[in-house]
Amino acid sequence: MRASILGGAGYVGGELARLLLGHPVLDLVQATSRRHTGKPLHTAHPNLRGTGDLAFTDPARLERVDVLFSALPHGEFAARLGELSERAALLVDLSPDFRLHDPAAARRHYGPGAVDRAAGAPAFVPGLPELYRDRLRTADRIAVPGCMATAAILALRPLADAGLVDGDVLVDARTGSSGSGNTPGPAGHHPERASTLRVYGPVGHRHEPEIAQHAGVRARMTVTAVPAVRGVQVVAQVRPGRAAGRAEVWDAYRKAYAGEPFVRLVAQRQGLHRLPEPRMLLGSNHCDIGFDLDEDRIVAVSALDNLVKGAAGGAVQSANLAAGLPERSGLTFPGLHPM
Amino acid sequence: MRASILGGAGYVGGELARLLLGHPVLDLVQATSRRHTGKPLHTAHPNLRGTGDLAFTDPARLERVDVLFSALPHGEFAARLGELSERAALLVDLSPDFRLHDPAAARRHYGPGAVDRAAGAPAFVPGLPELYRDRLRTADRIAVPGCMATAAILALRPLADAGLVDGDVLVDARTGSSGSGNTPGPAGHHPERASTLRVYGPVGHRHEPEIAQHAGVRARMTVTAVPAVRGVQVVAQVRPGRAAGRAEVWDAYRKAYAGEPFVRLVAQRQGLHRLPEPRMLLGSNHCDIGFDLDEDRIVAVSALDNLVKGAAGGAVQSANLAAGLPERSGLTFPGLHPM
Amino acid sequence: MRASILGGAGYVGGELARLLLGHPVLDLVQATSRRHTGKPLHTAHPNLRGTGDLAFTDPARLERVDVLFSALPHGEFAARLGELSERAALLVDLSPDFRLHDPAAARRHYGPGAVDRAAGAPAFVPGLPELYRDRLRTADRIAVPGCMATAAILALRPLADAGLVDGDVLVDARTGSSGSGNTPGPAGHHPERASTLRVYGPVGHRHEPEIAQHAGVRARMTVTAVPAVRGVQVVAQVRPGRAAGRAEVWDAYRKAYAGEPFVRLVAQRQGLHRLPEPRMLLGSNHCDIGFDLDEDRIVAVSALDNLVKGAAGGAVQSANLAAGLPERSGLTFPGLHPM
Amino acid sequence: MRASILGGAGYVGGELARLLLGHPVLDLVQATSRRHTGKPLHTAHPNLRGTGDLAFTDPARLERVDVLFSALPHGEFAARLGELSERAALLVDLSPDFRLHDPAAARRHYGPGAVDRAAGAPAFVPGLPELYRDRLRTADRIAVPGCMATAAILALRPLADAGLVDGDVLVDARTGSSGSGNTPGPAGHHPERASTLRVYGPVGHRHEPEIAQHAGVRARMTVTAVPAVRGVQVVAQVRPGRAAGRAEVWDAYRKAYAGEPFVRLVAQRQGLHRLPEPRMLLGSNHCDIGFDLDEDRIVAVSALDNLVKGAAGGAVQSANLAAGLPERSGLTFPGLHPM
Repeated sequence: MRASILGGAGYVGGELARLLLGHPVLDLVQATSRRHTGKPLHTAHPNLRGTGDLAFTDPARLERVDVLFSALPHGEFAARLGELSERAALLVDLSPDFRLHDPAAARRHYGPGAVDRAAGAPAFVPGLPELYRDRLRTADRIAVPGCMATAAILALRPLADAGLVDGDVLVDARTGSSGSGNTPGPAGHHPERASTLRVYGPVGHRHEPEIAQHAGVRARMTVTAVPAVRGVQVVAQVRPGRAAGRAEVWDAYRKAYAGEPFVRLVAQRQGLHRLPEPRMLLGSNHCDIGFDLDEDRIVAVSALDNLVKGAAGGAVQSANLAAGLPERSGLTFPGLHPM
Repeated sequence: MRASILGGAGYVGGELARLLLGHPVLDLVQATSRRHTGKPLHTAHPNLRGTGDLAFTDPARLERVDVLFSALPHGEFAARLGELSERAALLVDLSPDFRLHDPAAARRHYGPGAVDRAAGAPAFVPGLPELYRDRLRTADRIAVPGCMATAAILALRPLADAGLVDGDVLVDARTGSSGSGNTPGPAGHHPERASTLRVYGPVGHRHEPEIAQHAGVRARMTVTAVPAVRGVQVVAQVRPGRAAGRAEVWDAYRKAYAGEPFVRLVAQRQGLHRLPEPRMLLGSNHCDIGFDLDEDRIVAVSALDNLVKGAAGGAVQSANLAAGLPERSGLTFPGLHPM
Repeated sequence: MRASILGGAGYVGGELARLLLGHPVLDLVQATSRRHTGKPLHTAHPNLRGTGDLAFTDPARLERVDVLFSALPHGEFAARLGELSERAALLVDLSPDFRLHDPAAARRHYGPGAVDRAAGAPAFVPGLPELYRDRLRTADRIAVPGCMATAAILALRPLADAGLVDGDVLVDARTGSSGSGNTPGPAGHHPERASTLRVYGPVGHRHEPEIAQHAGVRARMTVTAVPAVRGVQVVAQVRPGRAAGRAEVWDAYRKAYAGEPFVRLVAQRQGLHRLPEPRMLLGSNHCDIGFDLDEDRIVAVSALDNLVKGAAGGAVQSANLAAGLPERSGLTFPGLHPM
Repeated sequence: MRASILGGAGYVGGELARLLLGHPVLDLVQATSRRHTGKPLHTAHPNLRGTGDLAFTDPARLERVDVLFSALPHGEFAARLGELSERAALLVDLSPDFRLHDPAAARRHYGPGAVDRAAGAPAFVPGLPELYRDRLRTADRIAVPGCMATAAILALRPLADAGLVDGDVLVDARTGSSGSGNTPGPAGHHPERASTLRVYGPVGHRHEPEIAQHAGVRARMTVTAVPAVRGVQVVAQVRPGRAAGRAEVWDAYRKAYAGEPFVRLVAQRQGLHRLPEPRMLLGSNHCDIGFDLDEDRIVAVSALDNLVKGAAGGAVQSANLAAGLPERSGLTFPGLHPM
């Protein structure tokens, strides 16, 4: 099967390339970059040295493929949707363009131009196999959720389904620098970013409506940039609204994720690895989820690699389903320890 | 004035030594270490090379001084209190021994032996000049609060005093590795600790009762070990219980901290440094405090260097007051940027 | 084919487990750990959660396998060699026990007990496929070289073979903390290790004789612990002893490594990735090699992941050859970028 | 005494501001920034919050002062020299403009425009008190050497003076990101810079002629960007050309630096702090120097904070001398440990 990447020179594009070059069925035939046209992929992605001869393609020269992954900046995928629909049977978009269904939320976070896109969003199946596996099996258009939203949704949805969420949820999200892309700027300048604990999104983060849409809870996010390149961790403070024991929470999660290939429950009573953290997930498509609790509060913790499960890996997993392939195809790397 | 340090070879002891060696009035005459007796201070604290000839003293050979700072492990200061009282007019303890007044909380977090110490705690003035300046001016015994507690208390007390705290407060605390001391162990082993976001205290942290005692609010803490050696940051999620505008919160903080030499309000609308973070506070005695808010929530953020304002610096500031010295003495280092 | 790991709970053991659990032919049937006997592998290696049910085995209960990898501490493999020889057709040792042939060097760096082991060393084929591929194809005993030695040897041997090394070579090696293992101690305590540039081996490093043995040059190493968990980088300063142009050096390396599956030549004139560095090699079995030069000096740079190409990956690559398997089996992960 | 900073918004300008705001005699009256004119200093330097009301000045509105520090980019100080000479009795330049005396080296590293500046360079006393203290006492123009050059010169000059340098010296320099300034760009983008060991200057570094000029040795530098914001470490490989014992090297250094307020000799036989490293020097004006040796090689190691001893601190120390002030004025911060 032939696959291509639109917007292949960014960090998400590079991660897609890594996964597709190691994929047993999907063959990467094109990756576009205006700036790097004609140069080998490893010009932008030095880890890909030695993986073959593929060079970046002019975005105007897209060939027809079976699966087209788009890692274009916000708005650009939507603008080319008509044309791109003719280029591939399956379109997988990793931008926010067709994530939000609520036009008011879309406008608030992405501006007036996003209202029309919200109208088109229902045509896209969310790239969240844990919630939408059946719909993904027949999807021809997929919209992959945001990285922090994915981590939060996977932590919260089982609790909501079990009636264990009463009122708003406070979601503390911590993120590495790669989520902001590869364009240099003051916020990512190393002397300012290296040791930071920058609370850059204390209130009103744009991933809040995605969480509401998929987990059915009102999340109040606070986002902190932490000293890491890759990785997202979410700590969600949930009021169950009633007595809830450890066993009941375990049941909720086990019921939701039994048999899930990429969700692992991590909730030991003690030890260094008792709760999820991103460092041993880098490069992996896992989302680890765990929790602790006291008498009237559940502290749910989830972690993932923002470029893999939070973007390129979630996209490939979803595409595997839509293409009728084994869901794990190309996604077996387990992560490293120590890291 | 003569000062000494009991427990001079640990990280807090080293920070006390740095501050006292640069203090214009307090002269460091002894720093004890059983292990390093007879060796120069820089054996344990390499930054102190070239600051003089002082060597570690056997703890049994304490001379009488004006101010004795104790950085002994939990329980050891209390065990020697009778003897130490004869060694110095002013005792400043940096351990948890005499912090908690509530015997139930003391027992819960520090074991049955802590109940008696709780009974003795009221004889110690808390080493928090922002709250207890007048009492500190006449104190002969001082107990310095914990580092995360200090950051949380300074962020929350003005809100509580202004009637802006309704119900529990969720306190997300992030901490560097130096707070765990200089004894090697699995949790601090570099390959496990370097890139970690370890939620090691999801519920029930021992600093909660200190916050209740001093800020009058019930704090529910979640503590995460982050990739840093020094520094504590607290993000407190407060429900004001009524409409509260930005101006009112500013007023609450300004009223509390006008003229405070070591509290800075940091709450810009934008920019890289809009909210407090520890990196530009390392070595400094400042606690930076800021906030943002939405319609029904205040997100208060504070930061400090756990070894300075959260320990040795707070101790010296308190001792300055008790000794009738200018409060800033020996504490003028402003921190570095970039870091 | 059945494989097992002796000493499975350490960092090298964990990396072997990761590679073998993903290996298409070699099946991991046992991994020993005295301390963790009966517990699942992910007790020590959290990245391996979800990879199966294997639990650690008592080292006394080793079954017979086709390939036995030993990651025991120095001296222990040699002590059990007789017994272990009956347990597996192929023994692959990752300790220093049978690396050195020169008894004087062995005694100098590893003590008097190492002299006898040096006598037994020639029975072990060095686990360096780039130099000893043909011998590895028929090997029944393999000794994998040290991580820094591997990086240095692969950078220097082609230059030596081309007559481009005149006199001693100065080898500046930089290493992450994982190379020192998972036992906590003062040198690896996070507050001391996190931001260090510790020149802990200014002269006389134990990898020098390995370099002499395999590259035929006298290396003078200086080793610095740098702020990283994984990764080794070597910067070798070579005097060619005669005029040597860029093309000649390229030729030497291309001739040596044409077709090598895990050596990549990286020597661009400019750009961020002009010379090798470990960060995009983490988890990968590649050794990247590059150079620059001026009129009378070649600066050769190599990089690898000390736990993969410098240990477990080199071991699996060598075992693949000895077992008649495709050399890349289980070793296709390309590394991540950004990291 | 009145002092001002030309180019006050960069990292070196900020460090000058920190030092002058804490200086007992020099009063900072102006710091210029075109971009930040009228805004408080802490807009660019958040560590300076609370240190007073000073705002950035338009560079065209420089008042006459006693000491003018210039942290302008390369070439700009020289272009304004005539005008600036009327603004201050003492000019201290921190750019490379008037460092190099050799016109050929100046042209090679800084272009044709640098040749004229080389002709003017002898009018500037080098800001290296350890070598030029007497000349600095009467200087009216000072040119502060580069940060890596300072570290290398202080390590090598005593060896050269003692006849312990035979032939070229290989200088391995490691540097943090702050040395490249505060302008964002690809090389300093956090995802590319955070974990790097980038050998960006394998041969031909521009600090080589400075080392030749001041230490009298031919240095062959290799420069690596390491994971740090602040700090420079130099590892110099010296061939003494004859038998040289530890005592003789100690003597050379002790003779050179006895009584030096900011050079510390650090050369223990063992321990975590046996050789210099930058982490415990951050914020301090110290340059630590140490060494180890074997039969025919001296490995000299030095470390400093590039923004302090390697720039602003060296400038203030030099200005103190020229202004007849105690040399340590404003420079007493000893650095922190752990860091």
